[in-house]
Amino acid sequence: MLHDNGLEMLGPDECVRLLRLESIGRVAVTMGGLPAVFPVNYQVADGKVVFRTGEGTKLHAALRNAVIAFEVDRLDRVYSEGWSVMVVGTASEVTDGDRLAQLGRKGPRPWAPGRRDRYIEVPLDFVSGRRIRHDMPDGA
Amino acid sequence: MLHDNGLEMLGPDECVRLLRLESIGRVAVTMGGLPAVFPVNYQVADGKVVFRTGEGTKLHAALRNAVIAFEVDRLDRVYSEGWSVMVVGTASEVTDGDRLAQLGRKGPRPWAPGRRDRYIEVPLDFVSGRRIRHDMPDGA
Repeated sequence: MLHDNGLEMLGPDECVRLLRLESIGRVAVTMGGLPAVFPVNYQVADGKVVFRTGEGTKLHAALRNAVIAFEVDRLDRVYSEGWSVMVVGTASEVTDGDRLAQLGRKGPRPWAPGRRDRYIEVPLDFVSGRRIRHDMPDGA
Repeated sequence: MLHDNGLEMLGPDECVRLLRLESIGRVAVTMGGLPAVFPVNYQVADGKVVFRTGEGTKLHAALRNAVIAFEVDRLDRVYSEGWSVMVVGTASEVTDGDRLAQLGRKGPRPWAPGRRDRYIEVPLDFVSGRRIRHDMPDGA
């Protein structure tokens, strides 16, 4: 088992399994040269992370074929344990009619009011994850 | 009240008030030209966001006087409501002895084992926030 300064490093399969457990992630993009982070509802579909955004929003513009980081975590405040998974990849908009129809029926639901009818996907080619556990030997 | 595609925009004072309510945020940095996001425990102290990292970690290296985005949110899965606040600013390491001693007594506690004895701070000069509420008029 690999460790990174006291954190257990998770393998890709475990990362994808954890991604499927949650529904809220954070997207990190660059906007006008500055980093920005936004929470989104997401789903794992066809081996990709899929989330929605609105045409004409700043996020939509920033996502145009950009390399983004997508992060999901589950952190327990009581036990100070948890995990985080990060996907890094090129965001692209779903334009295929069949896939759009399928995502429209089963895809992630945005919380916010306003139109968010653009589906953005990021492949799961580069995933990494860490788990914080307190049953590990000290200094692991 | 300002809106952004159905989201209520929050003023700076409200953003800082919300930042003080939470203890876990996500730091977005650039590493080797690629974006990356990491969850951290943080605290608001002396008008700045303060969190810890370890000497020699990739995060510590990436934070060296870098412009970062720091995001905190509280999202309610049941009601699909919540808020997110983002701080964008230049990260710097706390090196003043008095401040370090004070932070050591009262500062944010890292969850992970391993040494995380470097304090990084980001000024609250550029904060923005949004709230999702479903009692807003449609299309607001």
